[in-house]
Amino acid sequence: MTVTAKRIVLAKRPQGTPTLDCFRFETVDLPPLNEGQVLVKTLYLSVDPYMRGRMNDVKSYVPPYRLDEPITGGAVCEIVESKAEHLRPGDVVLTQTGWQTHAVVPGTKVQKLDPAPQPLTLALGLLGMTGLTAYFGLIDVCDPKPGETVVVSGAAGAVGMVVGQIAKILGCRAVGIAGSDEKVRFLTEELGFDAAVNYKSPTFAEDLKQACPDGVDVYFDNVGGTVSDEVLKRINEFARISLCGQIALYNLDKPDVGPRPGPLLLTRKAKMQGFIVGDYAPRFPEGLQKLQTWFNEGRLKSRETVIEGFDRTIDAFLGLFTGVNTGKLVVKVS
Amino acid sequence: MTVTAKRIVLAKRPQGTPTLDCFRFETVDLPPLNEGQVLVKTLYLSVDPYMRGRMNDVKSYVPPYRLDEPITGGAVCEIVESKAEHLRPGDVVLTQTGWQTHAVVPGTKVQKLDPAPQPLTLALGLLGMTGLTAYFGLIDVCDPKPGETVVVSGAAGAVGMVVGQIAKILGCRAVGIAGSDEKVRFLTEELGFDAAVNYKSPTFAEDLKQACPDGVDVYFDNVGGTVSDEVLKRINEFARISLCGQIALYNLDKPDVGPRPGPLLLTRKAKMQGFIVGDYAPRFPEGLQKLQTWFNEGRLKSRETVIEGFDRTIDAFLGLFTGVNTGKLVVKVS
Repeated sequence: MTVTAKRIVLAKRPQGTPTLDCFRFETVDLPPLNEGQVLVKTLYLSVDPYMRGRMNDVKSYVPPYRLDEPITGGAVCEIVESKAEHLRPGDVVLTQTGWQTHAVVPGTKVQKLDPAPQPLTLALGLLGMTGLTAYFGLIDVCDPKPGETVVVSGAAGAVGMVVGQIAKILGCRAVGIAGSDEKVRFLTEELGFDAAVNYKSPTFAEDLKQACPDGVDVYFDNVGGTVSDEVLKRINEFARISLCGQIALYNLDKPDVGPRPGPLLLTRKAKMQGFIVGDYAPRFPEGLQKLQTWFNEGRLKSRETVIEGFDRTIDAFLGLFTGVNTGKLVVKVS
Repeated sequence: MTVTAKRIVLAKRPQGTPTLDCFRFETVDLPPLNEGQVLVKTLYLSVDPYMRGRMNDVKSYVPPYRLDEPITGGAVCEIVESKAEHLRPGDVVLTQTGWQTHAVVPGTKVQKLDPAPQPLTLALGLLGMTGLTAYFGLIDVCDPKPGETVVVSGAAGAVGMVVGQIAKILGCRAVGIAGSDEKVRFLTEELGFDAAVNYKSPTFAEDLKQACPDGVDVYFDNVGGTVSDEVLKRINEFARISLCGQIALYNLDKPDVGPRPGPLLLTRKAKMQGFIVGDYAPRFPEGLQKLQTWFNEGRLKSRETVIEGFDRTIDAFLGLFTGVNTGKLVVKVS
């Protein structure tokens, strides 16, 4: 029995905002399994902002995608066939197979979800990499104290919505920045943020000031650019700024210029620090246990935007940059 | 006996680079001493880049100077008359009286130098605030490890020359950035820096690259602006950047723009942190003891530029921004 897989490869490297011709759908017949390998069928795949960086041919914390090879990334899959001892057909696993409907991979490269979370997509979001990113980027990099004001940009996104909720659990004032009034309402009314502001509003700067009457102690930045410029103006002494993403800048042709942050960081004795969740791998069990506990207690809520159909993967990905999603964005493949 | 003091007051707030008319020389008769007060005569006074910031009417880590009041700052003085129990005429003290030839101050506001260092100016430099700034900004903020590359800008200045020497003591590769070939030679030939580069050279970017074959692990920044832009391009993963000064930006009319550092800090997982030495006050004894020990052992050398005459104080101060000084810049008053 030959299995045919559909997959999306990088056809050319994007200049600026990716266009459809940067990608190519391919259909390939998968080879029979060798010893130790498994055949997986993708149930859900993840589209994430960091993938944009990997489409450039530059040295970064992960190697760039190769031309004519599939876009890899997090996916929840089901085992269809197994020549790996510890895995059985029907097992649900977390893989890095990314944008493909089926794949043959070593059994050592998949992680069995046992028990699998419900819904399964939690393994890609709140109880997976995005939840861990929020947890370590907030707690380890910023060390927020009760009563402090924590601002998060991209607040209605996969990571941001978790950051604000953890801030609340820690006794902080949580202030979200998002790109629509609907997202603002979602943050305050459904997730319990103390305040949220729409950065597209002409009164954004004033709204942010009102939302942070005591200034900003912690800023978890998913966005960068002019949104962050406004937050920086309001930081308190000893503020901690965690750089998680800079999505506003990912699609620019050349490095963006803006006000130099040095003088502000200096006079406010503030810290700005980039981090990558992968460096916390030894502490993932700690993070997952906390997230799971808070989720079980109903203190952490998840929101997902599920796009149906593998063929819409590229649209879903591009939607990240226009803010189509509220919460974690996943594609339901089968 | 009435004592007449000369002093320099802030006549108006500078816009951009300070001009002579921002200051005014005054002559005042000092009042007789009240109980607990001392009359001090200034021997040496300090001119420091941070004073520029205090001339603006903006909230910062120290309050702004007031119009028509003397420019205060570090000074080494001799007690002329004392109504404070613990101080005697002839005692040498460290004060914050700044740009005045004589002053009446509470005895509680002066710190007796006992024993006084030789030369006395060390109390304003290597064995004073500038040495402590180098010590805590490098060791506490950046935590350099043996074998790492430490780059310091403003390297031939009061703080920078100490930073590079401490880096060497800690087993690091010390690379200095300075503004003349003479300063570059001073750093490598007299202070033992591994390399130094002249940022005014047309080959600065390439020179810096050659000087840092293994990239930059620690950057101690006294300067900011385009010099720092070049250093940032070369930072390694987990680099630590200590913001001590931003002298390139102090005299600008409006906030400077430059490449946003967010994407680099993020992908290199680097930290950029402002600090103010005053926050380390509880640890000053530790810092001074280390500095004194290294100085006694001949491992830390000091260099000073001494300008003679109180009337040249403003020239000396303005010279900081054009780089007239090598090492600590002080004015000999009497």
